[in-house]
Amino acid sequence: MSPVIDPDRLLGDLRELATIGAYKSGVHRPTFSPQDVEARHWFARRLEEAGLEAQIDGIGSVFGFSRAAGPRILTGSHVESQNYAGWLDGPLGIIYGLEAARAFRDDPACADLGVDVAAWCDEEGHFGSFLGSRSYLGLLSEEEIDSAKNRYDGTPLRDALEKAGFAGRPRVQVEKGRYRGYLEAHIEQGDTLETSGLKIGVVTAIVAIWQYRLTATGEQNHAGTTSMKRRRDAGSAIVRLLGAIDRRFPEIAGPRTVWTCGRITLDPGAPSIIPGRAEALFQFRDADQAVLDRLHAELQRLVAEANQAGPCPIEIDIMSQSTPALMDEGFQAAIEAAAQARCPGKALRMPSGAGHDAQYLARVMPAAMLFVPSIGGISHHWTENTSDEDIVLGCQVFCDALAGILRAQPADQAS
Amino acid sequence: MSPVIDPDRLLGDLRELATIGAYKSGVHRPTFSPQDVEARHWFARRLEEAGLEAQIDGIGSVFGFSRAAGPRILTGSHVESQNYAGWLDGPLGIIYGLEAARAFRDDPACADLGVDVAAWCDEEGHFGSFLGSRSYLGLLSEEEIDSAKNRYDGTPLRDALEKAGFAGRPRVQVEKGRYRGYLEAHIEQGDTLETSGLKIGVVTAIVAIWQYRLTATGEQNHAGTTSMKRRRDAGSAIVRLLGAIDRRFPEIAGPRTVWTCGRITLDPGAPSIIPGRAEALFQFRDADQAVLDRLHAELQRLVAEANQAGPCPIEIDIMSQSTPALMDEGFQAAIEAAAQARCPGKALRMPSGAGHDAQYLARVMPAAMLFVPSIGGISHHWTENTSDEDIVLGCQVFCDALAGILRAQPADQAS
Repeated sequence: MSPVIDPDRLLGDLRELATIGAYKSGVHRPTFSPQDVEARHWFARRLEEAGLEAQIDGIGSVFGFSRAAGPRILTGSHVESQNYAGWLDGPLGIIYGLEAARAFRDDPACADLGVDVAAWCDEEGHFGSFLGSRSYLGLLSEEEIDSAKNRYDGTPLRDALEKAGFAGRPRVQVEKGRYRGYLEAHIEQGDTLETSGLKIGVVTAIVAIWQYRLTATGEQNHAGTTSMKRRRDAGSAIVRLLGAIDRRFPEIAGPRTVWTCGRITLDPGAPSIIPGRAEALFQFRDADQAVLDRLHAELQRLVAEANQAGPCPIEIDIMSQSTPALMDEGFQAAIEAAAQARCPGKALRMPSGAGHDAQYLARVMPAAMLFVPSIGGISHHWTENTSDEDIVLGCQVFCDALAGILRAQPADQAS
Repeated sequence: MSPVIDPDRLLGDLRELATIGAYKSGVHRPTFSPQDVEARHWFARRLEEAGLEAQIDGIGSVFGFSRAAGPRILTGSHVESQNYAGWLDGPLGIIYGLEAARAFRDDPACADLGVDVAAWCDEEGHFGSFLGSRSYLGLLSEEEIDSAKNRYDGTPLRDALEKAGFAGRPRVQVEKGRYRGYLEAHIEQGDTLETSGLKIGVVTAIVAIWQYRLTATGEQNHAGTTSMKRRRDAGSAIVRLLGAIDRRFPEIAGPRTVWTCGRITLDPGAPSIIPGRAEALFQFRDADQAVLDRLHAELQRLVAEANQAGPCPIEIDIMSQSTPALMDEGFQAAIEAAAQARCPGKALRMPSGAGHDAQYLARVMPAAMLFVPSIGGISHHWTENTSDEDIVLGCQVFCDALAGILRAQPADQAS
């Protein structure tokens, strides 16, 4: 038997946290806003009350360290939200960790097992990219902190840390050998579980995101006096390229590949001026390196084809190309076994299309993720939600998986 | 023989006017900027010196009225420039009018003939659409003046008129029967004359501009967690529609039709968010009503086709649909005859792809336009230019055409 969670305590804490920065049925709690800082302190107090040694470090991450002798496991997610977004994206994972720590503490059979909890700062990227988990891994330099600014209002990160009261504190870094690994729970953010009638997603990998800037250069001119033959319309060139991608990618993508053009800018953007310059932000995501390579090659081929056809040269800038993060096989098996016991046949192995701190933690320790269903697949919007029943079931499966991992012999996970 | 122009006086005035608001080799003289107001006063003084009765009216248009007994003709163009644009777009036409008025004054044989000159305010649309010529025709209400604002900085038109010193003045309106008609000279703004080795464009019609807003509505969602099958990407919908237009329009357009998408906006415009809304500004221009109707029907058909295919409904809003303005046949013949005498075989009948005040004047009197070549077809850019030789030749042909029209019996123009 593994520790039993308290559904009322779990849901009560999630609801209480959601009052800090409440916005309609969601929350608006951007990193280092007064509401976010208040939520960090609230969470640190809850960790203390759970018997953990709580600490907010120099980048704003909140930690709760178990006093148990070991073995230990690390859990986590994040406190802050996207702007005007949902109440569970982040909070679900940290409150699962908190509740698991309490369940383990309350179960005499688990006296030696340690569940640590981390609320990684700024997973949502208001100031940078995964600041909390990267700082923990030693991948965030002081120089990067010096230059980071809030992407919406330009506030320097240093000023925000100062105002929040976290400046000058030490930054917690990973202690080698302390953990069996890392387990993170999160809402799915898609509708795969819901539409299949399933309850638990066992994440196999966190997809890589390959992001590009496509820029066409034409000739700005008068939209009335420049003949179709003479004009070099950068906007038309970008629209044609995006059309070619739209037709070609479905033929060569993997079954779960996604691709998105999130922004198109025509310059100067006036109704009666032929665009002299056009830019598109384009990205694709997949967990399979071979698929990523194939799509990248095809994108380059389509751009070359467009450039051969002319008349507007198109440049392709690679903005980022991350690596798919594979989740630990043993941990996946532990989650699956826990789900099988609590809700037989209701778990599904699936990649995560969104990025999560687990992709960084996976670089230094075995890591895995567990998903619960998102109602309507809605994410990054205040209407995001998950049923109470699914929240409670997910937390018990999470707790069972932690127990399974902690009680296994280390060799089991290496298989 | 018709009056003979003075090339040095003509070029000297054009160059002097270009010093007011000079920007590189062009000018930056937006409507009611200090430079624009200075240029209006400068032009009024020049009109007075030419023996005309000068007046700046309550909307900022500058007039020079001949004291000759008649018959009379009206000439004109505009003083202000597009932002950081060329030195001749506007000034060429008003200085041609000024020089013609002087040439007629200096020629004893023309003592009875009157050449009036108008510099219509804000043809370039910094505050509205053809304010000067529409005011002259009685098509600009006080309410429209009350609500008009500068499109770049939001300054109310009333404040700009006050600051310029033109507020409270009467607005000059067309005097019925005063003129044989209206003749406007302008740079071509395209490269048809230059690439054909021609010198004079005889404008047959000013094209109509049909302007649309195309809006696709999808569902804003996470670009990583929303499968390709589930997503409703408004940006993809707009790109597909623009692609369909791009393929279909060349098959059904007229030989001189032009079409342009000047702006695409994806909302919210972030790299990792599927656009929930996408908007494109799309226009086409032609002088032939049948072509306009055909393209309009096809655009509606393509939108209906896109809506049938789904999944993002596209709405089509008509922002404006003007009527092609036909130039007077007799005036066209007069320009052609003048060109044939000065540069045999070097004139071409052609539509104007850009809008001009002549399209409004044509509603109340016979009107026509004469084009001179634009070097490289460049327009609305500070590198816009025309050779001195072409400027001088164009002005003499303009003057000859005015004399031809004024000396003809009115019945001749009715044919």
